[in-house]
Amino acid sequence: MVDNNSNRIDPSAIIASTAKILGKVAIDRNVVVHDFVTLYPNVNIGANVEIFEGAVLGKPPTGTKALARRFSPELKSTDVGKDSIISPHCVIYADVRIGEGTLVGDNASIREQCRIGKYCLISRNVTINYNTIIGDFTKVFENTVITGNMVIGSRVFIGALVATTNDNNLGRRGYDESFIAGPIIEDNVGIGSGANILPGVRLGAGCMVGAGAVVTKDVPPKTLVMGIPARVVRDLE
Amino acid sequence: MVDNNSNRIDPSAIIASTAKILGKVAIDRNVVVHDFVTLYPNVNIGANVEIFEGAVLGKPPTGTKALARRFSPELKSTDVGKDSIISPHCVIYADVRIGEGTLVGDNASIREQCRIGKYCLISRNVTINYNTIIGDFTKVFENTVITGNMVIGSRVFIGALVATTNDNNLGRRGYDESFIAGPIIEDNVGIGSGANILPGVRLGAGCMVGAGAVVTKDVPPKTLVMGIPARVVRDLE
Amino acid sequence: MVDNNSNRIDPSAIIASTAKILGKVAIDRNVVVHDFVTLYPNVNIGANVEIFEGAVLGKPPTGTKALARRFSPELKSTDVGKDSIISPHCVIYADVRIGEGTLVGDNASIREQCRIGKYCLISRNVTINYNTIIGDFTKVFENTVITGNMVIGSRVFIGALVATTNDNNLGRRGYDESFIAGPIIEDNVGIGSGANILPGVRLGAGCMVGAGAVVTKDVPPKTLVMGIPARVVRDLE
Repeated sequence: MVDNNSNRIDPSAIIASTAKILGKVAIDRNVVVHDFVTLYPNVNIGANVEIFEGAVLGKPPTGTKALARRFSPELKSTDVGKDSIISPHCVIYADVRIGEGTLVGDNASIREQCRIGKYCLISRNVTINYNTIIGDFTKVFENTVITGNMVIGSRVFIGALVATTNDNNLGRRGYDESFIAGPIIEDNVGIGSGANILPGVRLGAGCMVGAGAVVTKDVPPKTLVMGIPARVVRDLE
Repeated sequence: MVDNNSNRIDPSAIIASTAKILGKVAIDRNVVVHDFVTLYPNVNIGANVEIFEGAVLGKPPTGTKALARRFSPELKSTDVGKDSIISPHCVIYADVRIGEGTLVGDNASIREQCRIGKYCLISRNVTINYNTIIGDFTKVFENTVITGNMVIGSRVFIGALVATTNDNNLGRRGYDESFIAGPIIEDNVGIGSGANILPGVRLGAGCMVGAGAVVTKDVPPKTLVMGIPARVVRDLE
Repeated sequence: MVDNNSNRIDPSAIIASTAKILGKVAIDRNVVVHDFVTLYPNVNIGANVEIFEGAVLGKPPTGTKALARRFSPELKSTDVGKDSIISPHCVIYADVRIGEGTLVGDNASIREQCRIGKYCLISRNVTINYNTIIGDFTKVFENTVITGNMVIGSRVFIGALVATTNDNNLGRRGYDESFIAGPIIEDNVGIGSGANILPGVRLGAGCMVGAGAVVTKDVPPKTLVMGIPARVVRDLE
């Protein structure tokens, strides 16, 4: 399965016999690749990373006529920083960067051109859509959907089942980045479970969003918002 | 793994050596079947279809005593139309029809006896439950749950994390199709992320449902509804 | 793949040639293990159980510095009761007990130290987090997130896309079990789809929670609550 001539695989790495390596990859020391993993070409795995069963890394995006958005023609490598963990059945697309010490949970998907920081948690069944940037020490809990073109800061906490969207037109105007704008989430923001963050909204640094809130407009820094639509309830010290 | 005597596999098809074909299937020209895919008997794959790692197609449903609903005794073939894409780890049950040019995203499940139209998008972690019909050009975004016995029209947009349900009794009366009624969604409807569509509700053609709304009764065509419970806010064009 | 010297595998069991058994396991009569399944050491499978493609059982939890909570040092066996079904791509962690006749749906994750009763349904994309106890005949529908340290009774119905949480501080105070408290759900409770159950809340026996409700405080037994925040609407007979 592994052609050592075209790959750089440290001899200390343990790669299951059933794992498939489909092209040139680089695998650093003490990496463990478990059964039924697929590595597409141009994947670089840092030291001590563990990749669990059925995970797929470096997969190029594939479109049909059903998709409004066109793909970028040039895709760079997929890099996983040292000490990170990729859980079973994750799908990490091509041209993704994941910082060191980050945990990606079971069945999570990270789409092309995303940049995830260090020591993050991307939990189970989370989707991080295309071209989204996430800072360091940020946590995204189970089944949350992060839309495309988002910018998320550091030390952000996003609870379970949170929805984020980038299209107020529900697809009626096609895909044009002039009006497709994901929310912007600044550093140290906390978002309760089941909240809903609408397109283009900015969540100011250190603000908190209550569970189940629907955030329709910008939230000032260091305030607590709650309700539908979300309103400022009080300032946070 | 592939017994060409009992199958009709076009010689232009590329089938990974690790893929498992468990019975008689038909695979048309230029199909690509990636690693660790399982095809159960009675699966028909149209031209140019690509099936990614770990996907399972044609799996018969399996029940336990924990399930209220009984399965139909007769299951037909599972047919995937030409130019469609089946993403990693999808589970497509037996007796499903998927139209041409449709994209089924990572980890999506489509249960038995569903009919999905052409050029649809069924995104990541979406479940389409049993016996549901979906028209053409319809999009269902991430982590949305489509309940059983639904009818969904064409050019419908269903945002992420939308809940649909078919049982007002929360399971207290067992499973009887006389009162198990999924919502009906007519053509050109748009549903915002995190909305919640209750049993038996009809969403009229061209209506729009705001993000986070809980829809408890029928929505007239070409109106916008918002809130909990959802009320008409205004007419559309 | 299977070393019969160190395992107790009933001769009537059918184990796919691609399945991986990574250590000592016990497999009872008439069990079926499908392709690409991984069984970690110390897994015990009861009679008539069927385990579908890509499922992973007995996986030890793995942490990074990104995780606040430390793992328990001692993990016991993973036991699946007779007549249960484990669907494709499920991940069942180490030290989990699943009662007889329980169905675990596609892509579901059950974390370490959980105890699931008999004749339960744990549906697609559901996460049951660490150290949670669930009674018998309980159903948890698609994409619902069950947080850690929860106690859930018998004959409970939890709809789709329900959020439960155990940390009112959104991670700001680190992980300390003195204030990390999951909700408690007593017997015969029904929870509508999309509801949101906040930390430490107790749902009294036989109460019902409306779809989309946000439950911020205890609910008396045999009452119906609805809305945001949830309020008692009426008593149930």
